[in-house]
Amino acid sequence: MAKKIRVTVWNEYRHEKRNEKVAQIYPKGIHGAIAEFLQKYPDIETRTATLDEPDHGLGGDVLDDTDVLIWWGHTAHEEVKDEIVNKVYNRILDGMGLIVLHSGHASKIFRKVCGTNSDQLRWREIGEMERIWVIEPGHPIVEGLDEYIEIPHVEMYGERFDIPAPETLVFISWFEGGEVFRSGCCYTRGKGKIFYFRPGHETFPIYHQKEIQRVIYNAVRWAKPVDGPKPIFGNVEPLENIRGEQELS
Amino acid sequence: MAKKIRVTVWNEYRHEKRNEKVAQIYPKGIHGAIAEFLQKYPDIETRTATLDEPDHGLGGDVLDDTDVLIWWGHTAHEEVKDEIVNKVYNRILDGMGLIVLHSGHASKIFRKVCGTNSDQLRWREIGEMERIWVIEPGHPIVEGLDEYIEIPHVEMYGERFDIPAPETLVFISWFEGGEVFRSGCCYTRGKGKIFYFRPGHETFPIYHQKEIQRVIYNAVRWAKPVDGPKPIFGNVEPLENIRGEQELS
Amino acid sequence: MAKKIRVTVWNEYRHEKRNEKVAQIYPKGIHGAIAEFLQKYPDIETRTATLDEPDHGLGGDVLDDTDVLIWWGHTAHEEVKDEIVNKVYNRILDGMGLIVLHSGHASKIFRKVCGTNSDQLRWREIGEMERIWVIEPGHPIVEGLDEYIEIPHVEMYGERFDIPAPETLVFISWFEGGEVFRSGCCYTRGKGKIFYFRPGHETFPIYHQKEIQRVIYNAVRWAKPVDGPKPIFGNVEPLENIRGEQELS
Amino acid sequence: MAKKIRVTVWNEYRHEKRNEKVAQIYPKGIHGAIAEFLQKYPDIETRTATLDEPDHGLGGDVLDDTDVLIWWGHTAHEEVKDEIVNKVYNRILDGMGLIVLHSGHASKIFRKVCGTNSDQLRWREIGEMERIWVIEPGHPIVEGLDEYIEIPHVEMYGERFDIPAPETLVFISWFEGGEVFRSGCCYTRGKGKIFYFRPGHETFPIYHQKEIQRVIYNAVRWAKPVDGPKPIFGNVEPLENIRGEQELS
Repeated sequence: MAKKIRVTVWNEYRHEKRNEKVAQIYPKGIHGAIAEFLQKYPDIETRTATLDEPDHGLGGDVLDDTDVLIWWGHTAHEEVKDEIVNKVYNRILDGMGLIVLHSGHASKIFRKVCGTNSDQLRWREIGEMERIWVIEPGHPIVEGLDEYIEIPHVEMYGERFDIPAPETLVFISWFEGGEVFRSGCCYTRGKGKIFYFRPGHETFPIYHQKEIQRVIYNAVRWAKPVDGPKPIFGNVEPLENIRGEQELS
Repeated sequence: MAKKIRVTVWNEYRHEKRNEKVAQIYPKGIHGAIAEFLQKYPDIETRTATLDEPDHGLGGDVLDDTDVLIWWGHTAHEEVKDEIVNKVYNRILDGMGLIVLHSGHASKIFRKVCGTNSDQLRWREIGEMERIWVIEPGHPIVEGLDEYIEIPHVEMYGERFDIPAPETLVFISWFEGGEVFRSGCCYTRGKGKIFYFRPGHETFPIYHQKEIQRVIYNAVRWAKPVDGPKPIFGNVEPLENIRGEQELS
Repeated sequence: MAKKIRVTVWNEYRHEKRNEKVAQIYPKGIHGAIAEFLQKYPDIETRTATLDEPDHGLGGDVLDDTDVLIWWGHTAHEEVKDEIVNKVYNRILDGMGLIVLHSGHASKIFRKVCGTNSDQLRWREIGEMERIWVIEPGHPIVEGLDEYIEIPHVEMYGERFDIPAPETLVFISWFEGGEVFRSGCCYTRGKGKIFYFRPGHETFPIYHQKEIQRVIYNAVRWAKPVDGPKPIFGNVEPLENIRGEQELS
Repeated sequence: MAKKIRVTVWNEYRHEKRNEKVAQIYPKGIHGAIAEFLQKYPDIETRTATLDEPDHGLGGDVLDDTDVLIWWGHTAHEEVKDEIVNKVYNRILDGMGLIVLHSGHASKIFRKVCGTNSDQLRWREIGEMERIWVIEPGHPIVEGLDEYIEIPHVEMYGERFDIPAPETLVFISWFEGGEVFRSGCCYTRGKGKIFYFRPGHETFPIYHQKEIQRVIYNAVRWAKPVDGPKPIFGNVEPLENIRGEQELS
């Protein structure tokens, strides 16, 4: 049997403890809700980690044992220790997948892999409607979807969003109030795959919505590490006189 | 003095002759209107060509003498002769710029350079509002613009638009009725640069709008040919023993 | 059990019948050799098709029953009927994967999806050495590889290769005689994924080489269709008043 | 008359003071050599800045008065103050162009905009030959070049180079010893354009070579700021009820 994909769902986990409305929507925290629906898929195993645990729950071997890390943060990005951010960064370059959700666009780790001020965008919180259009209907991340996803009430994010042009732009959002947004963005950094996915908010039940769950599941599968080459870096000898032999099957 | 950019504005030129409303908006044809505003720029010289001229106005040396070709067609794409399409195609690969406007997405030449069924998209003609967002504020094509362009009444084009992912996505449109669209798309084919720009319609005065004119002007400058290398194709000798000498300044 | 990926290996199949040396290397044809090693993988089932069969072996339901089509042609590209090329093209846009090998760069179908004169490149046939470097070590197509593949004797292909910039450039080749080449190029056209892979020639046993076989297998898995949305094209109603309900899990 | 492009050439400027051989090749420093040839172009004005000046020569209004910054560093990357790196970074996001040369791949600023460990690559210093192939013959950066540039003696850099896939890959290098390298890489970060150009070394007269000078000049022109929109970030009102009027020409 194929090995399961090991997912760690990271959450700031502050709103849920302080705001009753959020607690009602996500009684086990946003991380709990995401881990719960992912856990139902037979090819995935999950664990969770949160800001206020020691080392933000990412100490020891946790990252080494993680194939894909999901990141949700909002109000406490600056409390994430640089040392942990650097550990996450190096694991991504070494192949771990990263899925950044919603307000995670302003997290230290996403800004670091973007190389831009990805915290910069337009926003508005009046509960307007969002329609998320599939731009690449052949991409693995849209498996099982219809041509758009509709979310009745959301916080709006609008362009200009200060990110590098995605390698693949999977979704574009339309908002009732007049904005558009690049809502599903694929990147590669080192050997790691990164997916930014806009939907999600603490005061709307967006991570309970079936299509959103499907996208996150698809993204986990897309972002899982590949057992590719381990490049040699540094000072090397010329190869020119070493004509290899062909190993035939 | 720098050489002017030689622009040929091509138009199907049927609507204007048959439909009084269109004729009122574009008394000299859409090609006439575009050539007229471009001609005001000191670095541009224009000529026009239309479907019903011999060789669609693109015979003889016209294409060889063209730096950037602007293409507007709508109802008669199939009447454009394959022989002329191939001439245009080869000139693009050899460096001529191509700007495809609005319904030109379904033209033979754009389908040919896309390698997809770029005639496929959603559309609706109820005169709704369009807001065109600048996605890449550092791109030469958005010089002089604000962060969005608003057009009060348009024909809507919506995703899914069956094009290859643009090399640079410059604009995304928002429509009142709920759709989004990749409205400014840059491609390279051979040595030629191609820009697809969505706005424009025969029954709305869109090519009289200042920002739209500015985009077309910017795109002409961006798409003009570069005097780059002329690659050698075909059977070649090994280069390994020819160690060149360095020509120092 | 998961459904197998249905691969059709297409071959021009002329060299093998006319040239004894080629027949010795590929006694069952290049298509036979490729089908044979792919067939050993438990998740793949193969069939073959060749130029001189009726409809080039691609009539009836063959394409509808194909998830990934592998294409090898060399001397008879022009004999492939346009009607079959168009069928293949439409199946790609509808989601079928396409893997184009070596001299298939000049095939009608690859030129059509490129939108360039992809038959244009430098070449030389002196049996020099090629070293194929992995540029994206995290890409699914390089699973199980080392940082380069070495082939002792090849026909050289060199830049400038007149293709659109690949969406992902997976491999770059180095040749003894002084050239480089973009040897592993990913594209999306419509819902279909396309991979161009340079190695392979009729007079060298390249498709018997283990790493080459691994790349082709990986590419098949990468290029298989995704069950994504079926976009609606054409004239549509505005969506703005239809606020959907959220289907929660 | 058009405004000149204001170029600041930044150099670590250590080798030239400590190593006689380097001093002979670049008696005014590498910055001096680059500024000198750029200064000959009528559309460019230059200044220089070096590590050991106060604020590394980039204090006060220097960066605000710079359209394009050229960066050469090698042994003292870590001595560049984070505060200055951040100033440079913010100016890039705001539109300033950046050209990173050779060993500048390991500089703090390039690693920051890459979002990867771009200091990671293969290297070798045996004075082998390099041939730099033009991959995009229609790109403004290759204006005036032949299809390749040959440099008789260089330090080799080889793949895997840990950078994000360039938005445009302009050059690929071939090295005598068996490696390849992505030698001309375009990126956009915020409103700023970035070009990484591999050639150059302190012990070879590479910046005296005419074609190399031409590439740097072309890159300056390509990377100069565009007077595009200044996006509004942050909390915004809905736009939906403000139907703009069309300003016609």
